[in-house]
Amino acid sequence: MARPRALVFDAYGTLFDVHSVMDAEALSLLWRQKQLEYTWLRSLMGHYEDFWVVTGQALRYAIRRLGITATEAQVETLMDAYLTLLPFPEVPGALRALAGTPLAILSNGSPRMLAGAVRSSGLDGVFAHVLSVDTVGVYKPSPRVYELAPLALGVEPGEILFVSANGWDVAGAAAFGFRTCWCNRANAPAEELDATPDYEVDRLDSIADKLGI
Amino acid sequence: MARPRALVFDAYGTLFDVHSVMDAEALSLLWRQKQLEYTWLRSLMGHYEDFWVVTGQALRYAIRRLGITATEAQVETLMDAYLTLLPFPEVPGALRALAGTPLAILSNGSPRMLAGAVRSSGLDGVFAHVLSVDTVGVYKPSPRVYELAPLALGVEPGEILFVSANGWDVAGAAAFGFRTCWCNRANAPAEELDATPDYEVDRLDSIADKLGI
Repeated sequence: MARPRALVFDAYGTLFDVHSVMDAEALSLLWRQKQLEYTWLRSLMGHYEDFWVVTGQALRYAIRRLGITATEAQVETLMDAYLTLLPFPEVPGALRALAGTPLAILSNGSPRMLAGAVRSSGLDGVFAHVLSVDTVGVYKPSPRVYELAPLALGVEPGEILFVSANGWDVAGAAAFGFRTCWCNRANAPAEELDATPDYEVDRLDSIADKLGI
Repeated sequence: MARPRALVFDAYGTLFDVHSVMDAEALSLLWRQKQLEYTWLRSLMGHYEDFWVVTGQALRYAIRRLGITATEAQVETLMDAYLTLLPFPEVPGALRALAGTPLAILSNGSPRMLAGAVRSSGLDGVFAHVLSVDTVGVYKPSPRVYELAPLALGVEPGEILFVSANGWDVAGAAAFGFRTCWCNRANAPAEELDATPDYEVDRLDSIADKLGI
């Protein structure tokens, strides 16, 4: 397979560790699950709100569902943590090794959230483009989202390798026409969505080897 | 509020108990969660497969995710149980009490699955229409699905009371323009999707009272 002309990364769960926000595992998992559900539901309903709003609504739902008592100040502290997420440990080095190819982010995050996480991860200047679904007002896995990357990068979908830790995102990207790499951090089974990734790794620092870089 | 001109029911979780399929709670919950996720994801990707296919794929994913050993015959037995679901205990009596108003089902289920569950629940002849998303090739909460009900019933969306146990389905129906009743069987918190149901009940046999029937 020819060397890709650009590498496009999902952000949350792929570059940035959303579960670094807190130690409370049940809340963290339910928060993340509802956050994704709300992006899918709002997209299907045609009622887009940006990822900051959706993330806040998901957190409030999860808190109530788990019967947790939380003050407004505690909710705001958890939300603000999304602006200063940490990268997974191997990410900065892995991206340096791939930097001979144009790199981009394509994410559900709002521009402000993505700018915050890029900065807090020490990744300023690494990406040629930081692309947000906010431009099109619909979330992944709508093809209207994936289309943003070839438009911004000026290359064909089949010349892009799209990297995500979210199996459903990989399936959506493959359906759109990207080549795909599933970063299967949790050793999860493949999603049953009729798509097989071109590559599977368990950490981003294995990608350079897979591509022979 | 004026008496509705038609009552439209969601099927799975509202009329029919999907968790009656098996005793294994973890598998049952994950199966249902993935089933819904796959309907949302496929709808957004524009890759519709019918609910029988999606339900089978969700089951296979859940089995692998939980590390369960299951033979093909066991998988088929679980799938076939979807064709002979049981209604929640109060459902037949509740529907009889409401039968002075036209009743319909509007469901993600394929026509064959819905016909099976209506029959196994002893509800043949109760519904004026059993409407499936299969007609439009997209799943709830797309407005293209909800639109099927006013078209079939010949009434305006605002004259329909839509009843669902799924909070996200209630939100989608309200966004479309239905009046809504959330059958909150599990005493769950409301979904954070900017919609408040007109009525909330914990069992379907409370609806007649709410409507003054």
